[in-house]
Amino acid sequence: MDMRGATPYIVGMTDLSPREQMIRTALTLFKHNGYHATTWRNLVEEAGTPWGSAYHYFPGGKVQLGIEAVTMAGREVAAQIKHQFATAASPTAALHVFIEMFAVSLETSGYRAGCPVATVALETTPETPQMAEACAAAFALWEAAMAEGLQHFGRPPEEAKRLAVILLALYEGALVVSRVSRSTAPLMQCAAHMGALLSGPAYAVDEKLMQSCEK
Amino acid sequence: MDMRGATPYIVGMTDLSPREQMIRTALTLFKHNGYHATTWRNLVEEAGTPWGSAYHYFPGGKVQLGIEAVTMAGREVAAQIKHQFATAASPTAALHVFIEMFAVSLETSGYRAGCPVATVALETTPETPQMAEACAAAFALWEAAMAEGLQHFGRPPEEAKRLAVILLALYEGALVVSRVSRSTAPLMQCAAHMGALLSGPAYAVDEKLMQSCEK
Repeated sequence: MDMRGATPYIVGMTDLSPREQMIRTALTLFKHNGYHATTWRNLVEEAGTPWGSAYHYFPGGKVQLGIEAVTMAGREVAAQIKHQFATAASPTAALHVFIEMFAVSLETSGYRAGCPVATVALETTPETPQMAEACAAAFALWEAAMAEGLQHFGRPPEEAKRLAVILLALYEGALVVSRVSRSTAPLMQCAAHMGALLSGPAYAVDEKLMQSCEK
Repeated sequence: MDMRGATPYIVGMTDLSPREQMIRTALTLFKHNGYHATTWRNLVEEAGTPWGSAYHYFPGGKVQLGIEAVTMAGREVAAQIKHQFATAASPTAALHVFIEMFAVSLETSGYRAGCPVATVALETTPETPQMAEACAAAFALWEAAMAEGLQHFGRPPEEAKRLAVILLALYEGALVVSRVSRSTAPLMQCAAHMGALLSGPAYAVDEKLMQSCEK
C-alpha cells in the first residue's frame, strides 16, 4: 500500500505526488462543498491529474479517494493536536490554537470551509459504511489525542477521556453553528467555555446519568 | 401565503394536506440521507404527491421545499424547547428531554437520523444563500428559545444567551459525533456535562478572550 498520502505533515502542494495532490484537493473540495456536490470530474480537474491516471491512483474512484482523504485528515489533525499539547503552556492554550485556526479558515473562505470530516460524515453515513468508518476513526483519533494531551497536563485518564468527548462535540458543534450563522462568535464563546471548563474545579459528572447511559 | 406548514405541533401524517406531507417527507429524507442525495423524485414519490401537483405546491422545486422544511423544523423544535422549559422541574431536565429524543431517534433509525438542519446546512451553505439563511434562522430560534428558558429559571439575560450558544453547539456536536461513531455515549456525556454546567457555580467567562472576539 502506498503510504505517502498518510504523512502527518502538511507540505506545499507543489511538492506533492499526483496521488497526494488528489487527496489534498479532495479534502479542500469536501470542506467547501461537501461530498455529494463534489464530482469525480471536479476532483480530477482541480488536482490537475491527467485523466488517464486518476483511476490508476484510485481504482475505487471517488469513494476510495474520499476514504483516504478523511483518513489523512484524521491523522494530520491528531498529529497537530499532539504537537500543540506537547508545546503549549496550558491545555486551554493548546485548544485555542485550533479555535483560532478554524476562525481564520471560516473568515478567509467566506464561511465555506468547515470541518473536513463532519460534512462528509453526515452525508455518507447511511449509504457508505466504509466512509462512515473512516470518519468515525478520524473523530476517535482526535478525541484520543486530546485525552492524551490532557493527561500530559495531569488529568486522570478517565476524566481526560470524558473531557475529550465534550471538547470534540464543542469543536464540531461550534464549527457547524459558526459556519451556518456566518459569525465566529459561537466558536469564540465555545473557546471561552473550554477555558472555563479546564481551569475550573475537577470536572463534575452526573453519575446517575452516566450509569443510565452505560446500562 | 399558506401557513399551514408552519404549525408548531407534530400531527399524524394522515391528517396532513399534500403540501404539508411533502414538507414532512422532506424533513425525514434530509435527516436520513442529506440534501443532495435526496432527489425531487424521491420527495414526490415518498410523499405520495401526484406528479402534476408537486410543482403546483412548490414552484421553486427542491430548493423551495428545502427552505420550507428547514423553516418548519426551526419553528417546531423552538416550540418544543419552550414547552419543555415551561413545564420541566429544572433547566437540566428540559435539556435532557432532547438528549433522550435524539438518542432514541439515532438508535431506532440505525444511526441514520440526525439533526434535520445540520446536514442540509453543511451541504448547502456555499451554493444556496437562501437555504443557508433558513438554516441560520432555525439555529437562532433554538438558541433564543433556550436562552428564554434559562431566564425563566432565573439566569440573567446575558448569561442565559452565552449558555444557550454553548448548549446549541453541544447538541449539534454530540449529534454529529454520536451518529458517526454509532454510539449514544457522546450524546450522554454531553448531557452529563450540560447538567454539570447548569448546576455548577455561575458560568465563568474568559473575559479577555470574549473581548478579543468582539473586537
